[in-house]
Amino acid sequence: MKQLDPQTIQARLDGLTKPPGSLGRLERMATRLCAIQGRLDPQTRPRELVVFAADHGVVAAGVSAWPQEVTGLMIDNIAGGGAACCALSAAHDVQLRLVDVGSCGEAREERGNLRVARVALGTADLSRGAAMTIEQFDAAWRVGEEEARRALANGVRVLAAGEMGIGNTTAASCITVLLTDLCLEDAVGRGAGADDATLERKREIVEQAVERARGMLGEDARAACAEVAGFEIVAIAGLYAEAARGGAVLVLDGVIATAGALIAERLVPGTKDAMIASHLSVEPAHGAALRALDTEAFLDFELRLGEGTGALLLMPLLDSAAAMITNMATFEDAGIDGASDA
Amino acid sequence: MKQLDPQTIQARLDGLTKPPGSLGRLERMATRLCAIQGRLDPQTRPRELVVFAADHGVVAAGVSAWPQEVTGLMIDNIAGGGAACCALSAAHDVQLRLVDVGSCGEAREERGNLRVARVALGTADLSRGAAMTIEQFDAAWRVGEEEARRALANGVRVLAAGEMGIGNTTAASCITVLLTDLCLEDAVGRGAGADDATLERKREIVEQAVERARGMLGEDARAACAEVAGFEIVAIAGLYAEAARGGAVLVLDGVIATAGALIAERLVPGTKDAMIASHLSVEPAHGAALRALDTEAFLDFELRLGEGTGALLLMPLLDSAAAMITNMATFEDAGIDGASDA
Repeated sequence: MKQLDPQTIQARLDGLTKPPGSLGRLERMATRLCAIQGRLDPQTRPRELVVFAADHGVVAAGVSAWPQEVTGLMIDNIAGGGAACCALSAAHDVQLRLVDVGSCGEAREERGNLRVARVALGTADLSRGAAMTIEQFDAAWRVGEEEARRALANGVRVLAAGEMGIGNTTAASCITVLLTDLCLEDAVGRGAGADDATLERKREIVEQAVERARGMLGEDARAACAEVAGFEIVAIAGLYAEAARGGAVLVLDGVIATAGALIAERLVPGTKDAMIASHLSVEPAHGAALRALDTEAFLDFELRLGEGTGALLLMPLLDSAAAMITNMATFEDAGIDGASDA
Repeated sequence: MKQLDPQTIQARLDGLTKPPGSLGRLERMATRLCAIQGRLDPQTRPRELVVFAADHGVVAAGVSAWPQEVTGLMIDNIAGGGAACCALSAAHDVQLRLVDVGSCGEAREERGNLRVARVALGTADLSRGAAMTIEQFDAAWRVGEEEARRALANGVRVLAAGEMGIGNTTAASCITVLLTDLCLEDAVGRGAGADDATLERKREIVEQAVERARGMLGEDARAACAEVAGFEIVAIAGLYAEAARGGAVLVLDGVIATAGALIAERLVPGTKDAMIASHLSVEPAHGAALRALDTEAFLDFELRLGEGTGALLLMPLLDSAAAMITNMATFEDAGIDGASDA
């Protein structure tokens, strides 16, 4: 990655024909884009969303309002172009890719933008033991890495990750409690619609699973994450780590993709410098995860869907930030003196 | 405007392949779009931003950090394509139109997207008397109406208004205090960069001017607004009122354009039903104005520039909302049962 002095970016922003700082957070977004790409005319195309789908053994413990089969049905729905992520990516010139990294049930044939790379038929139940083996962790990570390399080879400048997996907010809560200072009470939310009893069950399961994982964290962070994660979360981590190395801008989504970001930063420190957060989810763990990654959410849309939908909402705002810093005239161009002369 | 039952819109949203409500405020945005346009596949193109520019006599009282000449220089900058609103409208397929409704100095020739329709060479100083006559108020309103009719004739579905005018936050503060329940202390902000002394001066001026105008409000709201408004603010009001009658979606911008919206709603009740707020400005009067119009700001970007820049940031999010409700598959399409069966 090229280096660009923060003062150089600020001087460019302050020279544009507007009161300094008057575009507020759009200026901070532009600063981040420029810093990541090492240029004053950041590029936001081509861009891509990779949605990773997988199943979770912990669903057997009753943590979700939706039956496990929905993961597979939603894989078909995304592959068929009917899901929210399809509608939003088509609206904003974002290539959409779908990777089955470990759903249950019969294997699908690869078709269109669907890749099948199943590590296993879902994780094991994390309420009863390790969600996955180290070998499975590494395999899922590699799937993500491969996706990052493919995207980079295609010239992708902005890369987002999304997910689909019934039960995956439980795994994401475990990862967030494990890798941040978040306390348990604030860590567990309703996911895509859990009721009070389900919420209580999720809390107990997360508490016990994180206690097991925490014991391993000092010695082997990878093993600790494998204890409680999901295949799609680990694949997202691998994607982020490799894409950051290649100079791409990483757009975060909700609490599950951000759990992947936490794993990436833990195992490959510095990955977070390439990240831009999109939205603040209603899931309570999300704010803590974003703080741990030193990044601010630009949107507060009360989203709780996943699939990368929050990242997709941010894409055109990145275009706005890039257009602003790239295409506006400077005071010098326009022959205007600054406010200080008033 | 066609009528569309709120239940019909909600049923459509709840039938899409996502947990009900999981796209949060994007669903509310889609609901608003559908309700205004009376259809379940809302149209967000063609779309246009009309920026109205004018000067303000109150600048002589020392309410701005910028000299009055900047209004004219920024008219040239916008007409020349160098301003923030130019960069952002080009990025999001928004037609940009600029109307000089009353700047000072030598008249410009019409060229490109610039229309010259000056009501006068700036308003009179509202700290010393009425900012404009009733005849001038009507003339500025008509300029806005004409712009709305032209846009509607061109098939524009989504219309935003922006403004440029050194000193216009003082006029906007007066209008907002006059037409909402906002108290004076919360009404006056720093505009595009006022210091403490300037802020204090603005407060005194607004207090006295609003006191004069308030006396007229019961009898003649138009005269009360003319006492303290600006030509660009009145033109915006005329544009909104006429465009709402024609079925367009109105996208609000910051505190000045929203002051125009308050005038429109006061003089043509029901105009607010066509409005969608874009962002919450850092100007303190803005939140009160949006509450008075029963609308929520979707973005909180700490903007304080004007020119319609906040409205431009919202445009692609309207595309997202429209794409979501128009193009997503339903549970029925996808063969998925709802969460209640879990």
